[in-house]
Amino acid sequence: MDAPPVITLTTDFGTSDPYVGVMKGVILGINPRASIVDIGHQVQPQSIQEGAFIIGTSHRFFPKGTIHVVVVDPGVGTSRSALLLVTPLAYFLAPDNGVLSYILQEGFCLEPKAAAHVLAKGQGDSGAPVQWEGSQVGVHPGYRAYHLTNPEFWLHPVSATFHGRDIFAPVAAHLSLGVPAHRLGVETRHLTSLPHRLPRRDGDMLIGEVVHVDHFGNLITNIPASLLPQQGTVTIEVKGRRIVGLSRSYAEGVWLLAIVGSHGNLEVSVRDGNAAQMLEVKVGHVVRVVLA
Amino acid sequence: MDAPPVITLTTDFGTSDPYVGVMKGVILGINPRASIVDIGHQVQPQSIQEGAFIIGTSHRFFPKGTIHVVVVDPGVGTSRSALLLVTPLAYFLAPDNGVLSYILQEGFCLEPKAAAHVLAKGQGDSGAPVQWEGSQVGVHPGYRAYHLTNPEFWLHPVSATFHGRDIFAPVAAHLSLGVPAHRLGVETRHLTSLPHRLPRRDGDMLIGEVVHVDHFGNLITNIPASLLPQQGTVTIEVKGRRIVGLSRSYAEGVWLLAIVGSHGNLEVSVRDGNAAQMLEVKVGHVVRVVLA
Amino acid sequence: MDAPPVITLTTDFGTSDPYVGVMKGVILGINPRASIVDIGHQVQPQSIQEGAFIIGTSHRFFPKGTIHVVVVDPGVGTSRSALLLVTPLAYFLAPDNGVLSYILQEGFCLEPKAAAHVLAKGQGDSGAPVQWEGSQVGVHPGYRAYHLTNPEFWLHPVSATFHGRDIFAPVAAHLSLGVPAHRLGVETRHLTSLPHRLPRRDGDMLIGEVVHVDHFGNLITNIPASLLPQQGTVTIEVKGRRIVGLSRSYAEGVWLLAIVGSHGNLEVSVRDGNAAQMLEVKVGHVVRVVLA
Repeated sequence: MDAPPVITLTTDFGTSDPYVGVMKGVILGINPRASIVDIGHQVQPQSIQEGAFIIGTSHRFFPKGTIHVVVVDPGVGTSRSALLLVTPLAYFLAPDNGVLSYILQEGFCLEPKAAAHVLAKGQGDSGAPVQWEGSQVGVHPGYRAYHLTNPEFWLHPVSATFHGRDIFAPVAAHLSLGVPAHRLGVETRHLTSLPHRLPRRDGDMLIGEVVHVDHFGNLITNIPASLLPQQGTVTIEVKGRRIVGLSRSYAEGVWLLAIVGSHGNLEVSVRDGNAAQMLEVKVGHVVRVVLA
Repeated sequence: MDAPPVITLTTDFGTSDPYVGVMKGVILGINPRASIVDIGHQVQPQSIQEGAFIIGTSHRFFPKGTIHVVVVDPGVGTSRSALLLVTPLAYFLAPDNGVLSYILQEGFCLEPKAAAHVLAKGQGDSGAPVQWEGSQVGVHPGYRAYHLTNPEFWLHPVSATFHGRDIFAPVAAHLSLGVPAHRLGVETRHLTSLPHRLPRRDGDMLIGEVVHVDHFGNLITNIPASLLPQQGTVTIEVKGRRIVGLSRSYAEGVWLLAIVGSHGNLEVSVRDGNAAQMLEVKVGHVVRVVLA
Repeated sequence: MDAPPVITLTTDFGTSDPYVGVMKGVILGINPRASIVDIGHQVQPQSIQEGAFIIGTSHRFFPKGTIHVVVVDPGVGTSRSALLLVTPLAYFLAPDNGVLSYILQEGFCLEPKAAAHVLAKGQGDSGAPVQWEGSQVGVHPGYRAYHLTNPEFWLHPVSATFHGRDIFAPVAAHLSLGVPAHRLGVETRHLTSLPHRLPRRDGDMLIGEVVHVDHFGNLITNIPASLLPQQGTVTIEVKGRRIVGLSRSYAEGVWLLAIVGSHGNLEVSVRDGNAAQMLEVKVGHVVRVVLA
């Protein structure tokens, strides 16, 4: 027997309402064999940025062909499109509002070569982080994207406020049964992407920022390990403090430490403590790496 | 192969203890093929009312034949009965304390016709919401109900404090394996129901109340869309504020907006904000609709 | 077809990050038929003691052969070992830091006979609770334990900070596919155990303590029902208050009540309330039982 298809759910619905359970009920009503996995439902309400980070850093650990449903959707019921994005590894169902930005940018930017290119462009400039221009971006040539326009695969009546239940869940279930992508809607080559806040170079400094604070208070930056100096001792600056050298584990570090975390990026942590609370640092705070 | 049977869990157990996981362990020990779905475990401790709302508004999105286990059970270990309610669409296992009120009342009251009947009764009266009289109600003729009295299908020894683990979970698992309902206990025709706080009419006003505040702070009322005027502009009053007209989406509305939400009832929301916090409104607060 | 193997997850990862979902993705990528159950992810960050309690009191409700993955791992990336413990009933994957203490001690101490033996030793002594000496304990003769040393079954590259994803999840999945334990690493006969805070006897008093506060505020003690007097009326003292007699249910008790809870231990509760909040009692607080 074939492996049960995996469908993941990432939302800002929280867990005090039955919204997530209801999406699962709709999916299992269409494909009872689906294996449904929660990636997370604690995205800050309507924070497209946080939703993008969560799915962007987790999807590659799922089996090939996984169907990822991402519903952070402040524009539900408006003219914003509902999307299916097909990459060589997975399917993504989400509103077209930038919540798939990390996926869209992967083909272009997360390779060390591409990152180096962006850094070169940013080198010596006066301050603003390098950003994607505009919000509409072209789809990577290896990907395909569709506006979900075929109501045949939706739950009716479609509410104005809960497309997770009425559009994304049933479409995910039908997709998991083998319905081909092109039957679900109309192909498009342009999608919405958030500005991608890449680190930039300023003289002998690499200037990044905190893009996520995790449950332990670890400060996860947008500085990939590939951009850190391969030789010599790295020095990191954050909130007026200076960390010399990278630790190899949370426990081996001194009180305040820097480490390459499980996301593959530079992280700032406090041994047996909560760096975000102790340093009073939030998403967006600057983190500097001395390159020389 | 048959579809795996779906068993849902709705409790006030929270997620910091292993109580929910243990119920799943018991179920899988009896029926390893069960597909177990969490509807929610954040019901306020011992809030039968909230548990009733959660299961009452979510069960219809699950496949036919789903087994719903609902454990909000302040009377665990007392003489309160444990129930199985069988409707044409689903099975419900719960203590007999009113947590299945919405299900029990569906056959009678959620039809527009029935609601109109209740409204007619309430019309012109001086204030108290129309309520079900008494707490024992007859079972809808199309339903069957059983007191779970057969210990053959329980986990032994049965604790005095955790019937979710010792009675409801194993009975759900046996039911999912095809054990017929009548073997699980003794049939009954009377169950406990909470007063059902229906909206009432007072002159040209429809007077309802907030029955649930969701994760986003949306105020969900007990006023079904079917009772709203079909023509003209609706005006809604809540906490001294007046909302003119219904919005078609959260994002298209002005700051404070009214909308028919995904539950099918009138909802009051704040665009990109939290209505419950901004208006300082809780469950039970009055919401008025001007009918004329 | 064989029953799908059950893999449980217990961590301190919380639910706001994708860490738990990612572990599930890794497992399903290796064994798509695995039935994954969350026992809990709200263990206080890095609280080995709480993690030990959660898995220690829940594992016996899962089917024989269940694979339990327990990741509360402040020493991740250091030289602490990763473990597989095999008992006659289940498999446990965890760091070797004491988080499996309850499992390790079961073979020795949770039997009434063994507990009586410990009590006899402690009887009349001057105060310190009986504890396991040292942190290294021998493995019960009926169990087998292995250091996970074979990287063939890991996810590469192995991060320094997330062995849940890179070691424990993939090893669990391979184990669920039938890979024999001895292929995963090197057998050991000594593991780390936390001090086990057993109740002790002082004259005609049994002196225990609160080992867990649950979601409802119930104070769960380390005093098993088997140590309570079988005859006469029991008197319990906590925070200067005296409770006479055991209640048979939360609802039948008076305001402050004592009961044998679902863990099989003495519990202190408040009817329709939260004992931990009302008494201002936390884990570690003394609870006394008058034996005479």
